[in-house]
Amino acid sequence: MSPSGHPVDALGALVEALKHLPGVGAKSAQRMAYHLLQHDRPAAQQLAHALQTAVSQVRHCARCHTFTEQPVCLTCLDPARDARQLCVVETPADQAALERTGSYRGLYFVLMGRLSPLDGIGAQAIGLPELIDRVWDREGVPVEEVIVATNFNAEGEVTAHVIAEALKPRGVRVTRLARGVPVGSELEYVDLGTIAHALSERR
Amino acid sequence: MSPSGHPVDALGALVEALKHLPGVGAKSAQRMAYHLLQHDRPAAQQLAHALQTAVSQVRHCARCHTFTEQPVCLTCLDPARDARQLCVVETPADQAALERTGSYRGLYFVLMGRLSPLDGIGAQAIGLPELIDRVWDREGVPVEEVIVATNFNAEGEVTAHVIAEALKPRGVRVTRLARGVPVGSELEYVDLGTIAHALSERR
Repeated sequence: MSPSGHPVDALGALVEALKHLPGVGAKSAQRMAYHLLQHDRPAAQQLAHALQTAVSQVRHCARCHTFTEQPVCLTCLDPARDARQLCVVETPADQAALERTGSYRGLYFVLMGRLSPLDGIGAQAIGLPELIDRVWDREGVPVEEVIVATNFNAEGEVTAHVIAEALKPRGVRVTRLARGVPVGSELEYVDLGTIAHALSERR
Repeated sequence: MSPSGHPVDALGALVEALKHLPGVGAKSAQRMAYHLLQHDRPAAQQLAHALQTAVSQVRHCARCHTFTEQPVCLTCLDPARDARQLCVVETPADQAALERTGSYRGLYFVLMGRLSPLDGIGAQAIGLPELIDRVWDREGVPVEEVIVATNFNAEGEVTAHVIAEALKPRGVRVTRLARGVPVGSELEYVDLGTIAHALSERR
């Protein structure tokens, strides 16, 4: 909003548009707009271009639902990966975290969300029917194990439970990431729920 | 960065571009990119358009240096304002805050920054020569009082001092916003520096 009270100017429109970014309120949006216009107009143009390119180019992989610019993503097309394992994650960021460990060579299915009935996000929205089709698909190498790597919070646990219930009758092995004490941590400072899980799942 | 390690894709370019926004790091940029692409592509297009429009349309007012789409901003052109008073502020946000009080009817000069020698921001960068020209300008109504409303932190105080030193020899009255106890506050919770100022500047 301009100081003279003309909200539909270019600067006001930019502040309004920036407020659509998650975690950005009125004050942050104004600070961002002033910074870009005063100190970094090339960055503003670069961002405008990147937004348009991404909106027009980025779609979802037909097999794993992650973001990609091809019909099927490079991970799904990689012949070196083990197609017998399918890891189910909530977001591409979770997939990237698993990839960085370097200890998983199977394929992925990205839900692009989690079950959250209160927000109207049901099984359709997270692609559960497509996941079942994907596991049931007998064209290529059959999936032998589905590793559910949703988050360990309430919504992630419910999502994992629903996925396991949907897949178990189909004869596929459904596993979940192990819960336990994080690497490098001291027992004194680990929360009790985690210690209880680590104790009951000791090996 | 895509999980497959192809950093120059459209999604990676968008994350990189978002990192240029002030206060946005790698994780926030990724979250913003995922949110826009998964849930709000119209907002992404709106933001791209707003950025381009603002970069091409928004310039600085020739008289007060604030952001405007005209050669001279609407505030400076307003004949109802008192041209004998000139309020010096750091940013358009400060100007907007003063306007919202409804208790100032003079004109403004917006520094678009503050003196910060360590960051290489000197008198030229904040437009001090233009401010002196503006005060000295004998074409229109002469400026009788310059109200320095820079922030009350170290850099704002230095900026105020330099402006006062530059203007005082020219015979113009230079004032500063009053320091004191904020409205609605209880003395017990006000910092000691503020109370000391309020005491020494009592009236």
